[in-house]
Formats: sequence, C-alpha cells, structure tokens
Amino acid sequence: MNTILPERPTLKDVARAAGVSVSTASRALAENPAVATDTRRRIQKLAAELGYRPNAQARALQSSRSNTIGVLVPSLINHYFATMVTALQDAATDDGMATLITNSNESAPMMATSLDFLANHGVDGIICVPDEACADQLDHLHRQGMPLVLIDRELPGSDIPTVTSDPERGMVNAVGLLARHGQTPIGYLSGPMTTSTGRCRLETFRYACTEAGLEEQPVFLGGYEQSQGFEGANALLAQGVRSLFAGDSMMTIGVIEACHRAGLVIGEDVSVIGFDTQPMFTLQPRPLTVIDQHVGSMAREAFAVLNQLIAGKAPPEKHIRIPTTLIERQSIRKGQAS
Amino acid sequence: MNTILPERPTLKDVARAAGVSVSTASRALAENPAVATDTRRRIQKLAAELGYRPNAQARALQSSRSNTIGVLVPSLINHYFATMVTALQDAATDDGMATLITNSNESAPMMATSLDFLANHGVDGIICVPDEACADQLDHLHRQGMPLVLIDRELPGSDIPTVTSDPERGMVNAVGLLARHGQTPIGYLSGPMTTSTGRCRLETFRYACTEAGLEEQPVFLGGYEQSQGFEGANALLAQGVRSLFAGDSMMTIGVIEACHRAGLVIGEDVSVIGFDTQPMFTLQPRPLTVIDQHVGSMAREAFAVLNQLIAGKAPPEKHIRIPTTLIERQSIRKGQAS
Repeated sequence: MNTILPERPTLKDVARAAGVSVSTASRALAENPAVATDTRRRIQKLAAELGYRPNAQARALQSSRSNTIGVLVPSLINHYFATMVTALQDAATDDGMATLITNSNESAPMMATSLDFLANHGVDGIICVPDEACADQLDHLHRQGMPLVLIDRELPGSDIPTVTSDPERGMVNAVGLLARHGQTPIGYLSGPMTTSTGRCRLETFRYACTEAGLEEQPVFLGGYEQSQGFEGANALLAQGVRSLFAGDSMMTIGVIEACHRAGLVIGEDVSVIGFDTQPMFTLQPRPLTVIDQHVGSMAREAFAVLNQLIAGKAPPEKHIRIPTTLIERQSIRKGQAS
Repeated sequence: MNTILPERPTLKDVARAAGVSVSTASRALAENPAVATDTRRRIQKLAAELGYRPNAQARALQSSRSNTIGVLVPSLINHYFATMVTALQDAATDDGMATLITNSNESAPMMATSLDFLANHGVDGIICVPDEACADQLDHLHRQGMPLVLIDRELPGSDIPTVTSDPERGMVNAVGLLARHGQTPIGYLSGPMTTSTGRCRLETFRYACTEAGLEEQPVFLGGYEQSQGFEGANALLAQGVRSLFAGDSMMTIGVIEACHRAGLVIGEDVSVIGFDTQPMFTLQPRPLTVIDQHVGSMAREAFAVLNQLIAGKAPPEKHIRIPTTLIERQSIRKGQAS
C-alpha cells in the first residue's frame, strides 16, 4: 500500500538530459534569445517529456512551500459544490493554508486550463472534481508527483486518491421508504452517464428497486441542471408518475419547480425525494426528504489525504467512500404502510 | 477624468535605487546567498519601499500577460456571490482569460492573504468585494498600478474604480408598494454598518419611508447570515410587525425560515420583500417579491473596467452604479389599495 511518490524532475535533470549547463537550460526555458532557437526548442521538448514544471524550480529557490492549495469544481451556483469548496477552505485554513478556487462550469477545456494554471503557479496540491475528458492530464500530473486528490467523482481505473460518497445506504432506504408507502411507480431522474456519480447512482437505484421487490421503474436520463430536473419531472408527471426521486441537487430544484408550476403539493399530491442538504429543501411548506452525502466530511477527508501527499506520505487509504444517509422529512405522501 | 496610471517599478528601478547591477538585485530578491546578507536586506527593503513586485519581473521576462484575473468574494454559500463569480468568469472566458477565485468567508485577514497571493502570482488584475479593514492594502495595490476593480461594496473616499448597485429605485418602490397596501409598520432587516451596502441601504430605507409619508419604522440591525435574518424576523414578529423587508439575500432566507417555522403563510399572514433573485425565492408557494441588483450586469461592467485597466487605459467612469429594480410577485398581503 505504501507507494513511493515519484520525484519531480528539477532543472538540473533537464540540463543533464540535454547535456547543457543549468543556466543554459534555465535561459532556454525562459525563451532567452541568448540561446540558439534550435537548442531552445530541443531543451523545451526534453523538459516537457521529462514532465518538468518551472515552478518546481521556483520552489526549490524559495526552499519553502506556497502553503496554498488549488480547488477545482464544476459549478459554484450549485449549492452542493459551494458548500464543498467552503468546507475544503475551512479545513485548509485550520491548517494555515490558503485556497485558490477555480470553476470549470462543467467544461473540460476550462478544467484543463485551470489545472495547468494551478500546477504552474506553485500550489502545493490540488483537490479536483474531475471531468473524465481530463483523465490523461490528471494522471500525468499525478505521475509527476503533484499532490492530487479527486473528490465527488471518480476516474475509472485511475489510482489517484479519491474521496466519494457511497449512495447505497441512502438510496436503498429511499426506495424502500417509497415502496413501503405504496408510492410506486418511482420515477428516477438520473445524472449523466459521463460521470461516475451519474452511472453509479443509476445502478444503485436499480439495485435498490430489486431489493425492494420492484420491477423496472421509469428513468429519465438528465444532467446536472435545474432545467433538466424540470423537464424530467414534467415528462414523468405526464406519464402519470406521482413519486419522483432526483439524483442530484440541481435536478431536485427542477423537480420542486415542476411541482409548484403544476400546482401539485409536495407531500400531498406527489412524493419527492432529492439529493443533498440545502436551505431551500427545508424551507418548503413540507420540508423535503433527501439523501445527505455529508459533503463536509468528504471535504475534511479529502484535505487530510492531500495534506499527507504534500508531506510526502502515502495516504493509508486510496479510495475513501463515505456512506450516504436518508433524512426523512415530510415530502412523502401517506399511503398504505406495510 | 483621464488619470495616468502609475508606472509599476521594475527590477531595473530597484537596482538603480540600490546602486547595484540588475543581476545582483535579482539575486538579492531571490535570497541568493551569493549576495551578502546585509546587502540582500537593504535591497529587499528598498524594493518594498518602491512597491516592487517580483511578478512584474516575471512578466517582463515572459513579455506576456498571464491572461488570468483574480476574483475575491466574501462568501460562496451566498447564491448572490456565487452568481457574481460565475458571471465574472463568463465575461473573462469570453475574452480568453482564466479566473482564479478566492473566498474570504467575511474575514479581513483571509482577504489580506488572498490579495497578497493573487498580486504575487501574476494575475493581470483583481476584482474584489472589499472588506473595509483591507482598505490600506487595496489602496497600496492600486497605487502600485495593479489593475483593480471593487464590486458590490465601496471603500469610503477611495478612488479605486468601483461597480455597485444603487438601491434607491428598488427600495423606494418596495416601501411604496407596502405602504400603498397598508402593510405598515415595515420591519427592516439591515445589513451591518461595517459595509457600504449595509449603511447605504439603511439610509435609503429611511429615505424611502419619508418619501412614502411614513414615520420612523422598526429596524433590526443584522448581518449577512441566514441566522441573523431568522433572529431579526422573530424579533420583529414578536413586536407584532407583519411586514418584513430583508436587506440582503442571506437574511431573506432567514426571514422565510422564521415565517415557515412560525406557521405564517407568506403573502397571507405576512408580507415579505427580499433582496436578490435566486431559485429559492421563486420556488415558494407564493413567489417572493424581491429587489433585483442585476448582478450579471454588475459583473460584466466590472470586468469591462478591469479589462481597460489591464490594457493601460483609464476607464471612462470611475464609479459605476447600476439601478436596482423591484420585481413584484405574490408575497405581499392584499390590503387596502390607495
């Protein structure tokens, strides 16, 4: 389990590989015209191949850490990620570290740019909600020795340390609760198949249905936007479904919107279960029953792992999964209890 | 109006002032032991006095911009600031620039650290919701020539370019609406007196009351947290006040919470007006009447001003104020219309 972290290449390594002096290598990388163009290009290519990053040199010069971590999330409008970022920052602050935040707006190119920027500007480590389109870049950073922890979403087959939530307990209890109260069919609003959370929760929903003795239930394949939850809820309601289970925060908001617009009282005319805790879900006439991912704990665990990596230690556990919890409130219609 | 931006001191200026070569100055600032300790300290002191920042050197070497802006906000849990950050980032992205975000959690020391970090890590400019305790540091950065725009809050007496919202139109219409419907007394939940927005809106509320022909109305001095809105609403409700006007987003959430908990139906038993647009305020049985600060426009204006400063131009207007708008929905009790 105790893997040795790969050494980061230094300017010296680049110079040695290129057969030039350290100062020539330095000048070449700084695009100093004192070094012939061909030589510059050759050294730059070599440096790239070795995975050399200029800030490693800057750090060696300072012989100190920047005491800053970088955090990359796909959205800040989503209260779940805003809470995650704030909890990560609180953990970092408690440890005397600053936090730089970047928001990719669920865009892989924006994530790629942000990763580059953070890696090249001397953060000591990065915590990232990964986009699968950036898997190679993340793996490359990891192999170069950049302390890196993935949170919320996993990369299939990657050995980058990860902290995620395990939906099983919460979702099995949620489906069980709806089934016990006769609230079937259950319409599930699934996240996208391009994220591990989307895939894993859909699979878990199907498993939970089997556990509850239910045949296949209607599923709407959505995304991570309120509008997709709204659209999905309308589609399911139009099919006569009166029991809605949203697979993430933003789609939960969309489901609430659809119910309000259709004049359906949640907990009386329809049953609703959502994901995550946010003030909006309790500040309804009948507070929502939700699955809590314990985002604060996820953030604290992720920072603890990152901190170990920064200290050059291998974390005791590579893939931490935090069980979810069903929080029962008043959004389930009272049917026949079994 | 067209002020010339102060020149940023270069490494050359530091060397000239210290009477040493540029390379000696560079080594001294990099703590290179090849330079005697006394000389190093002397040069570092001089550099600090001149307001020299190492990244200016880094930029000159690269002879290119980082194409990155820094954004500093006091909270990300607050949907208003999350929206602001996202809109700023959208504007920057449209212009090919990346955005680094820092969250001060309404803590002046955290803001100070973040400002230092951003200024020393090569962002091209900074957009900041200022804490008044950081006024000197912000003024110093501004005088050094760091492109800097304040957003949402002003610093009294500062000449740093600012984009804020002007509460007058929205608040005068809000108080007028409540008064016309006989919804008095109006309990106002005020933001803190340590921010320009808190002070300005309280003053505007009093002005709006005078305009509406009302005597002094009850005021609760709160802050920018949901809990303070909750506490304030309870205090005002206990005084028999049935018309609540919250002076910011987070206190609006607290007011909704207090009404739900007290079993008071908003728009039937109590009248509520809040600040800002967020899904939660419309996804109520009776959508909330709110004051819209047009945070998207504020963000676009702020980025445009910053972009001009980065290009070395003086912005045409130093202090931009965007008028607020009252959005009437259904949270006002129907009383006698005048």
